[in-house]
This record gives sequence, C-alpha cells and structure tokens, in this order.
Amino acid sequence: MSNQIGKAFVVTSFGESHGKLIGAIVDGCPAGMSLSSEDIQMDLDRRRAEGDLSTPRHEEDKAEILSGVFNGHTTGAPICMVIWNRDTDSTEYERLHHLPRPGRADYTAYVKYGGFSDYRGGGEFSGRITASFVMAGAVARKVIALSGIEVLAHTVEIGGIPARKVSYQEIKERVAKSEVGCADPEASELMAGAIRKARDEGDSLGGVVEVVALNVPPGVGEPIFDTLEGELSKAFFAIPAVKGVEFGAGFAAAKMKGSENNDPFSVEGGKITSPTNNSGGILGGISSGRPIIARLAFKPTPSIRKPQKTVNLKKMSEEEIVIGGRHDPCFVPRVVVSVEAMMCIVLADLGLRGGQIPRVNR
Amino acid sequence: MSNQIGKAFVVTSFGESHGKLIGAIVDGCPAGMSLSSEDIQMDLDRRRAEGDLSTPRHEEDKAEILSGVFNGHTTGAPICMVIWNRDTDSTEYERLHHLPRPGRADYTAYVKYGGFSDYRGGGEFSGRITASFVMAGAVARKVIALSGIEVLAHTVEIGGIPARKVSYQEIKERVAKSEVGCADPEASELMAGAIRKARDEGDSLGGVVEVVALNVPPGVGEPIFDTLEGELSKAFFAIPAVKGVEFGAGFAAAKMKGSENNDPFSVEGGKITSPTNNSGGILGGISSGRPIIARLAFKPTPSIRKPQKTVNLKKMSEEEIVIGGRHDPCFVPRVVVSVEAMMCIVLADLGLRGGQIPRVNR
Amino acid sequence: MSNQIGKAFVVTSFGESHGKLIGAIVDGCPAGMSLSSEDIQMDLDRRRAEGDLSTPRHEEDKAEILSGVFNGHTTGAPICMVIWNRDTDSTEYERLHHLPRPGRADYTAYVKYGGFSDYRGGGEFSGRITASFVMAGAVARKVIALSGIEVLAHTVEIGGIPARKVSYQEIKERVAKSEVGCADPEASELMAGAIRKARDEGDSLGGVVEVVALNVPPGVGEPIFDTLEGELSKAFFAIPAVKGVEFGAGFAAAKMKGSENNDPFSVEGGKITSPTNNSGGILGGISSGRPIIARLAFKPTPSIRKPQKTVNLKKMSEEEIVIGGRHDPCFVPRVVVSVEAMMCIVLADLGLRGGQIPRVNR
Amino acid sequence: MSNQIGKAFVVTSFGESHGKLIGAIVDGCPAGMSLSSEDIQMDLDRRRAEGDLSTPRHEEDKAEILSGVFNGHTTGAPICMVIWNRDTDSTEYERLHHLPRPGRADYTAYVKYGGFSDYRGGGEFSGRITASFVMAGAVARKVIALSGIEVLAHTVEIGGIPARKVSYQEIKERVAKSEVGCADPEASELMAGAIRKARDEGDSLGGVVEVVALNVPPGVGEPIFDTLEGELSKAFFAIPAVKGVEFGAGFAAAKMKGSENNDPFSVEGGKITSPTNNSGGILGGISSGRPIIARLAFKPTPSIRKPQKTVNLKKMSEEEIVIGGRHDPCFVPRVVVSVEAMMCIVLADLGLRGGQIPRVNR
Repeated sequence: MSNQIGKAFVVTSFGESHGKLIGAIVDGCPAGMSLSSEDIQMDLDRRRAEGDLSTPRHEEDKAEILSGVFNGHTTGAPICMVIWNRDTDSTEYERLHHLPRPGRADYTAYVKYGGFSDYRGGGEFSGRITASFVMAGAVARKVIALSGIEVLAHTVEIGGIPARKVSYQEIKERVAKSEVGCADPEASELMAGAIRKARDEGDSLGGVVEVVALNVPPGVGEPIFDTLEGELSKAFFAIPAVKGVEFGAGFAAAKMKGSENNDPFSVEGGKITSPTNNSGGILGGISSGRPIIARLAFKPTPSIRKPQKTVNLKKMSEEEIVIGGRHDPCFVPRVVVSVEAMMCIVLADLGLRGGQIPRVNR
Repeated sequence: MSNQIGKAFVVTSFGESHGKLIGAIVDGCPAGMSLSSEDIQMDLDRRRAEGDLSTPRHEEDKAEILSGVFNGHTTGAPICMVIWNRDTDSTEYERLHHLPRPGRADYTAYVKYGGFSDYRGGGEFSGRITASFVMAGAVARKVIALSGIEVLAHTVEIGGIPARKVSYQEIKERVAKSEVGCADPEASELMAGAIRKARDEGDSLGGVVEVVALNVPPGVGEPIFDTLEGELSKAFFAIPAVKGVEFGAGFAAAKMKGSENNDPFSVEGGKITSPTNNSGGILGGISSGRPIIARLAFKPTPSIRKPQKTVNLKKMSEEEIVIGGRHDPCFVPRVVVSVEAMMCIVLADLGLRGGQIPRVNR
Repeated sequence: MSNQIGKAFVVTSFGESHGKLIGAIVDGCPAGMSLSSEDIQMDLDRRRAEGDLSTPRHEEDKAEILSGVFNGHTTGAPICMVIWNRDTDSTEYERLHHLPRPGRADYTAYVKYGGFSDYRGGGEFSGRITASFVMAGAVARKVIALSGIEVLAHTVEIGGIPARKVSYQEIKERVAKSEVGCADPEASELMAGAIRKARDEGDSLGGVVEVVALNVPPGVGEPIFDTLEGELSKAFFAIPAVKGVEFGAGFAAAKMKGSENNDPFSVEGGKITSPTNNSGGILGGISSGRPIIARLAFKPTPSIRKPQKTVNLKKMSEEEIVIGGRHDPCFVPRVVVSVEAMMCIVLADLGLRGGQIPRVNR
Repeated sequence: MSNQIGKAFVVTSFGESHGKLIGAIVDGCPAGMSLSSEDIQMDLDRRRAEGDLSTPRHEEDKAEILSGVFNGHTTGAPICMVIWNRDTDSTEYERLHHLPRPGRADYTAYVKYGGFSDYRGGGEFSGRITASFVMAGAVARKVIALSGIEVLAHTVEIGGIPARKVSYQEIKERVAKSEVGCADPEASELMAGAIRKARDEGDSLGGVVEVVALNVPPGVGEPIFDTLEGELSKAFFAIPAVKGVEFGAGFAAAKMKGSENNDPFSVEGGKITSPTNNSGGILGGISSGRPIIARLAFKPTPSIRKPQKTVNLKKMSEEEIVIGGRHDPCFVPRVVVSVEAMMCIVLADLGLRGGQIPRVNR
C-alpha cells in the first residue's frame, strides 16, 4: 500500500532500476478522456538524460500503455503504463552489495528487507522510479486540464546560485530552452557552469525547484489531514533527494509579522482575489483561487566519484568506497518534470474527491 | 476520511472551536498498555495558554477518556478522548460571518462548504484542533516509548531571532522552563521581548520549531510514498500555519556539494552509525538509526488587531476589518507540544506497520 | 482502521457495551443538509428493546450530536454522535471473565488482545455496537434521500417460519406494526409465538432479514472490488451474528439455468428496465436501476440460559456455564433497522464516490 | 482505488479480456520469500479451460513476473505479474456494442462510464479478471504457508446436484481428478452430465463452491468492520457471478436454536477447540483456531446461446439477441481455484495486519 498515492486518482508505482521495467497504474481516471502514449511520451522526453550535464545512462524510455485505454479514450478501468529497461549494466553493483553508498537507501533498505532488496542501481529506491511518476503525472495533467488547470515548474537555485524572479510567461517560454530547466537565462548559464565544475571534480550539486499551479478553482483540498499542503508534501517527498518543501512565503514567512504576511482580500472583475500571495494559494489547506506555489529543496546527488567512507555490512568493518556507475552530477534539471507530475497527480486526486473534476468526461 | 491520519495507528479528529467539544479517536493502539487521563493531561497542560504571551482565552482543557481503556489498560478497541469546550464567546463571529479574515480559512471554507461551515472561531479549522492532536500524540508517545523512542521539540526561531545550537540534554532540561519553548535562555528572553512588542503593536510573529526523535531503530518508514518524510510532512502540515517543513540539513542541503552533504557510515560499538546527520536520520524514506530531525516554519498568527482589507462576501465589496476575539500574538511557544504529538503519531503508525512495535503489549 | 467503513462517507464506531458510551463519527457527509438529533432518534427508537420479546435491559438510548452540525445543518466537518450508557450491570461478567461464552467473541477477543479486551457485555463486540451503526445510518438515510433513494428492511424468516412474499407497499405499512418486523401478519404472529416458546425454554432463535433499496439510479458501485455486493456484504457482516448474505435470487440462482436466471432487458416509459430482478438490481457490481435486494441470515442469539460446555481459560479445564445477564431470545426483530442502516451507509458512500450524490447540498 | 483489495497485502488488478494483458500487482508481500513464475503457473493451470466442459477459448495463460523478485526471492517491492492475451477474437463484440447481454455488466458499465468502457468480452468485467486473482492468490498461498496455513476449495453443488459431505483428505486427493472440481466421484459424474446437457441445449448452469482454510491460528481478523467474514465476502463478491456467501452453518443457522448452533468449547491436547464448527471457525469476526469454512453461490453463466430479450441502447428499442462468442456452459469447475485465491489473499492480508505473519522471512 506504501507504493501508492491518492484516494480518488490512485497511482501505484512498481519496477526497479535494473529490473525488467518501471511502471505505474492509474486507477480512477475519468472515463472518456482522450489519451495516447504520445501524451505520456511528451513529459517523459523532458525527463530524459541528455547533453553532457547528465548521466551517461541513456535510456530511450518509451512509454507503453497496456490497459485502460480503448479507441483512443480512457475507459474508467485502471491504466497500466510501463517503460521497459534496456540500458542496464549491473556489474558495478555486485561489487557494492555489502558496501552501502552514503546518502543512498542502500543501508536502510538492507536492514528493512533483511538483505533481500534489489541492490542493483538502488532497486525500487532509484531515482529512476520518477519515470513512473512522470507517466502518471502526464495522465493527471490531462485530467486537470479538463478543468483548465495548468502546472509549471522551474529551477530556481542550483549549487547556491539563485535565479531572479520570473513571470509565469517566462517560465512557459524559457524552461524548455534552458539546459538546467531555469527561466532566467543568466542564472541558467551560471548553474550549468557550476554543474560542469562539480562533475569534473567528481562531486555533485543540489538545488531548488519551484512549481506553480494556475487556474485552480477555490475549494480544492480536504481538511484536516488531506490538505493541499499535506498531500502535496507527501507526494513531493516521494521524489528521491527532496529534503525540504515550502508553500508560498514558506520559511521566510516565519520571519514576517502578521501584518506583512497576511494576504488582504480584494475584488477584481467580480471575483475575490488578493494582491499578494504569501499563502501560496492555500488557506486552511484549501485552494483560494490564487496560484498554488511550492518550492522543493533537493540535496546534491549522493553518488559521487570522490572516495567516501562506508562500512562493509558483512565484515562490519570501515572501508573506503569509490562509486562508479553512471550518475547525474546534478539531477535538478531532470527532476523539474517530476515535480510537475506530483503537483498534477495531487490536484487530479483532490479535484476528483472534491467534485471539481467530473468522473466521466461527457 | 480527510479528518484522519495513519494506517495502523489511526487518528480521527473531530469537534469545533466554539462547538461542544474537541476530540480524537485512536484506533489501532496496542492492547495492554497502561493509559490514564493523566498521561494525556500532562501533554495537554503544555499546550495551555498561560502568562501574558498568549491568548486570554483560558480553557482548562481537561482530557476525558470515553472508550478503549479498561482496568487502566488499553483494550485494543478505539480510544475516544474529548475536551469539553467551556470558555467560548462567539459574539465576535456573528459580526465577521461574511467578512473573511485574511490569512485564515474563513474564505476557503465558505466556498468549499457552500456557506454552511461553522464560522465561529474558525470552526474545525481553528488552531484549537491541535488539542486533539496533542491527546492522540500523548497516546502515541506511550506507544513508541514501548520501543524506547523519545520525542523532543523546541523553538529555534521566533520573529527572526534564532536560538543557538543546543544539545538534546539542554532541550530536555530547558524547554519547560522557557516562556517560548526555547532551550537557549538568551534567545528565549529576546524572543519573549519580541512577542510582547508585536502584541503591543497589535501585530504577531511566526517562528521555527525543531523536533527530534531519539532511539528510532533503523527500518522504520515505508517506500515509495509512505516514507518517513512523506508521512511526517503530511502530519505536520495539518497543524494550522505551518508553511514549510525540512528534514536534516533541509534547504541548506540544496547549497552543499555531495561530498559535504553525504553522511559517511562508520562503526561504533558494533553498530553502524554516522558522525554527521545531514540526512536527519532518514535515507530513502526509512530511518537509519540516527536521530530523526525536522524543522517546521510557522507563519505569524493571522488574527491581528491592526486593521486589514477584506471583502464582504454578501455584498462583494471591499471593507476594512478589525479583528477582536482572543488570539496569541505568537502561537509558536504553545505549538511545540503539537509538533511533538505529530512526530509521535507518525512513528507509532509506521512502527506498527513495520512490525517494530508489537500489536499487543504482553 | 478496522473500526471504520467507507471511503467518501466514512463511519467510525467506538464505545463498549458496559463502558461510558457508544458512538459513531461520520466524516464526509455533504454540507448543508438539515440534521437534528430527532432525525437520528427516530431510527434509534426502532432499535429499542420493548415488549416481552426482547432483553430486559431497557436503555433509553438518547442520541446526542456533539459536532459537525451548526444552525441545524451539516457543516462538512465530522459528525460525532453518542449514546451514554445508563442501564449497565456488569456483576455477571466478573464471574464469566475466564469462561468464554459459546458462540460469542469472548474467546477470540481474549486471544487477540492478550486478555486485555473489555469482557463486560462483550465490550466492543456487543450487539450494542449496532446502535452506532443505526445513528450513522440515520445520517446516511438523509443523504441518500437527497437523491430520492429509500431503504426498507423486513423480517422474512424466524425460527424456520417463512413470511409470504410481500409488496414494497406492504413493507412500508406493516413492519412498524409487527412485533417482529415482519410485513406478513400471519407469519408475524407465528414468529412471535416461536420466540416466546424458545425464551421459555431458555433457548433462542435466528432468522432472515431482507432489505430493499428503491430508486437507486443505475451506475452506483465501483469495480472490481468495491462493488455493491462487496461493500454491502462487508458492512452487513459487521452486524454481529450474520452468517450469510445473498443478493437477488442468491443461493437459489445456483440451481437455475442461465435462461431462467438472466433478467431480460426491456423498455418502459423510455427507460431501460427488466420484468424480473434475479440480479437483485446489481450487474457487474453496479446498480442497474432496479431495486437492490439483499437477504441476511442471522444465527440464533448465542447467549442462552440453558447450560453449556466451555473452558476455563485460566485453568484450561472444561466447565459448564450458565449465562445470566439480559439477552434477546431472538434479536432479529430489533436488528431490522441496523440492516437498513448498513444499506444506507454503503449507498451514501458509493453514491458520493460515484458522483451521484453531491458533496454540498446547495 | 476500487481495483484494489487489502491493507497490508494489497492486490491491484488491471487489464481487460480482449486488451493486451491481464495483470496484478501485489504490494506488501514479505521480503525473503522464494517465488518463481512456476509457483504462479501451478495455480493458473488449474484455472485453464480444458476438455469439452469449458469455453473453446484456449488461452495458454503463461504467468510472467515483471518486478519485485530478485535472485529467486521477493524483495519487499511490489510484485507485478501479467498474462499476455493471445487468443482474442473481438469480431462478435462489435455487433453487440449497443445490445447489452442479459446478466452481464454490459449495460451498467455503459451507463457508469458514459459508453466509453471496453465492451469487448466484457472488458475489465470479464471473468478473465479472475486470472489476476489467481496470480495474486498464488503469491498469497506461499505467504500464508509460511505460517502453516493451507486453503482448499471444492465444488459442492452444480445445477442443483449436491455432493455428499467429504473429508479434508478427500478434497486434497480428489478435486484435481474431477472434471468439475468435486471431491465426491458419483456427484462429480452427475454434475458433468448435467453441464453437457445444458451446453447442448444452449443453456448454462450455476453451483456452489466451498472453501476451507486449515491451521489458521486464533486471533486473525480485525473488528468491527475488517472482520474475517467482512473481508472474505468482499473478496468473494469480486469474482463475477457470485450471488451469495455464507460461513459455517450459514443460512441453515437461521433455522437452528441457540442450543443447537453454539459450538461448545473443549480442551484437546492442551488446546482449546470445539467438537462442532457451526461458526465456520469465526467468532466476532476473528478466527477461533478451527477450520474457516465458507460457501459461495454462483449463478449460471449469463452468456448462453438461447435467444434472449434485450434493448438496443442507441435506438431504445427491444431486440432479440443471440450470443455467439466462446463461453463456459458452467464456470464453477474453473472458478474453484479463484475461490481459493481469494481466501489466500484475505488471510495473507489479515495475518500481516495482525502480526501473525512476519514482514520479513528471515
């Protein structure tokens, strides 16, 4: 049950990094929605490793829909989507079986599953699982689009280099053109440079991704526990390496006064809105009608080429480990689409639960 | 279902700020654990408004156990706990019915529930609901203590004033003595002064609370979605006014290099550990055996005495609102125990799910 | 979590037979529905022990609503309802603590909860828990009435005496007038006589209850597992003493040929219907628009005055037990309203999930 | 979420009769259990259509494990299993698209999913979905075997012809040898004859299957709603065509007196047991240590060759339908293994939840 999220739009993920495949099942998708593997491929391609900034593991990552779609439309039955793994090379991992890599789930998975977990490439703990999220997110993106909702994410910090504040329009236009998924061209270049430097040093970088949902109607989100922040943060933390999540002003709000942080209400074109959005579009866990805004902190890629200290689990002795394998020196650029996916999935789920999204697209 | 959290240790909250009561039901508590209302009262008393730093609403908040306990022990049946509301004064709220207070759930609840939500004191969206969390948390605290786990929270920032780094021992000894729940006496005094100043200006302050779980065995937490970070953050965001959550190094990790952020493994006394704990005791969503560490950002109390702009929902006209009622100028000091409660609840749930905590305390 | 049923209309039950109270929480009830304790009392009164056919334990059973209702309407917040126990006499049970009564949960609860379960009157396993179901069912009855759905149950067999087939109109008119909840006056009298005879012999009788839901629109029920039959049967088996559940032709269908059992489709007044209803209004787990029909087999009351063989759990020796206490010689008449409650609860849940019932009653 | 059952051992089914595949995902299977596709194939082969008593659609039905197993053992990650459909012939169904077959889900699925459901062979409502149940059940069978539990099912009635009472030993030895899954050789022959006769008349037969679980320890099952009867019946009703479920004496108990139906407790070899088992091994929803016994009533196959009345959904006119396609004249023989699968799945789930089955097989 832990490999599953959602109550009305339910996503189950499965598969391993070096196993036969990676997959996702979406249950609860409205019937009658047009859906093809191309819809999914579009998002998946944005996740692909490309250029010299990312891992040399170049998976084609072709999405295949195995069920739930008939005559080009969703049927209401579970949608199973898979990607067959092709470019797997597990030789490295045999050597590392009893040497848990620092910063990875190797050690905790070993303990939890009594040594039986698939240790090749992190098994189900690999960042590769985000390909499942992206597939499910692509379906969710179409679901929320039925209600006019749009989701955008972009890199706002890498290696401590911040991007300047940008407009939603800039995000739409520039993220795809940036090597690092950043809508600020100057920062983008600096970030790319920092990643190359880290890579050449056998090291890695982290960063921050911001995600925005536009046109979410007021009333989405369920009190007390299944709030927008609660459900979104739970989904975000499923992305490996996320160590912090904030909404609206976030941690900065802790330093403000009430009179500064409160968003006053106003009327614009007969609709209630707010000139500011420190709340990130969420009040009491429910959408206010303003854009929903979240930021996610990603730690640097734990798999680095520099030697590190670890423990041999068999001998219980300290050893030095040098990790080979193929890893992104900074996965922030590739993870932008995964962050969007999670926002789409949660909005589809809460929208269906709240009745803002219909169960059949007539 | 949205008023509920957990899968094995399940907490359901109910009640309203100005209704008859506030309550919680715990389902799944191990049978055979000694439990009395005193156990719950102890935590509840820590949440009580006291002194001149908090709301003049002084509820006695006496916990009453209504089911699930027999002969001083839990029976395995649901434990229902309530607090009867006494000191309610709803006159203020009739006036505010169509004037949503900025920063509160008034507007979003109005939209979501078609104007039928209980608007007195925020109804179920009131911070008073945290009394339910504290009651359930007190039960959970005893459950995890069966496995030796201990949870401590403390204020680390108020109004931008940071506390210095403290030891776990200092937290245990000093938090109870501080007016603001802070283990650094100097910072504590500065924070209290800042709150008084904000109060006198009719304004409010926010802050940051850190929570630590000690002695959590490795292996607690469920991949991929029901991770420690995912479940904890979802629980934390149920506390009104939380706008950010981070684990271990958190947002700071985004600025580190992999070689700095990774916690190397070492052996100490025949056990695997790490000299650093940037991961906050969590790898791949599963506990590593090191202390679990989280920080929560709280926005300033939205209910302030300063005039604010809002909209009359009936007339759809902009109006100025001045909020009376009784509110904390900074609820961070009182919320420390609620943060502990959430950590206890999630650890009890994941511990029972993972089998680290037994279902019957024989 | 096991004390809970439903995904959109979620009922949590709590309390014990000889504890302070019996209660239920309904989460997910549409906001804006008128609701008062009288609505609940009406159903509760039908469950009350009265006359000489039932237990001498005469509880007043006054329903009290503690949350979720404001200004006479549901708010969308959890509705907590309780009945305070008054007429409890636990002396009998101290004697029986280590002597499990045959046919009751005494032994299995003892094993499951390590001897810590509340053994007085069966604790949470008492038939008294059905008072919780009836309260939640009364709320659900109002919810499904928003869509015109009506639920009727009646006794169709007691002690092997069958009632003749009756019309829905007869059920509506006669059940309330019958001592045994039976719409066939002749059978009703025979059944009452049989119960009196069994009572006088220190013995007990079982029976069969039929329940019908009228005006359920087609399309209610979720494949593959959350089908109407699946969800209904799970709810029905929560009523103590149910040992069998069948829908439509039920076990009789197993003896028919396909050509006999299939309900042909026809058109009546522009609507699709069927002249027969062997399917009990359910095809593929989904409502067809025809009345939904189920029958539940109840075993005889296990607590009888005749001496029985049991085992002393402390001494592990065989003993004879004579049960005092106060018990119905046949609880079928009193359970009719509980069966209706379960049907109402499941239809409210599936109707809300499927979108046939709105989340806000505007 | 409706395509899923279980809370600790969670089964998700997907796929369609005439789509690419049929599949199941098992989440929560203990790590460290040996598992191969042969384990699954064994059960699947028992479900295969063979001989002249069943459908001429002869699928090879080869199980393939796609994830969750590594080095011959389960890893703790989700186990995805699929069967690729090969022998599909959908021509028949184009003709029937707007002519719902009596007794099938065609009409209700059409309404529920706005005409978008996959109508070929019943889509996800096809009896073929039970192949998913059998695969998941085969995994569950190995899980419960870790605790010594064994599950046996057998045909006890077809076309009104009853089998005589048989011993568990007879079930084990004879079911596999019977054409109709019946442990009584004489009845077996009569049943086979009745099926052939019905088939030759273009008609079909139903029947009753009994299932028994041996060696279930006392204490399995969760009150109040997630009882053994509740969870089992919900699972059983997911098998298409089940119209009734009873436990122990079942509907016959309704005709007994308390003194007849109650199972007295006794001591045998230092263990508590009962000489009779009218309760079907379940008291208060919890296992008593005696064999768990259930019986399921199956309606006759709805797809028959005889002409039937239906309605053209496009023209809303009454029409006669003659169904071609390939169907079992009685699917009871083939469904025996599906019934076992459901029992295994529910026992694995409740055993893991109750802690009777360990999460890691060390």
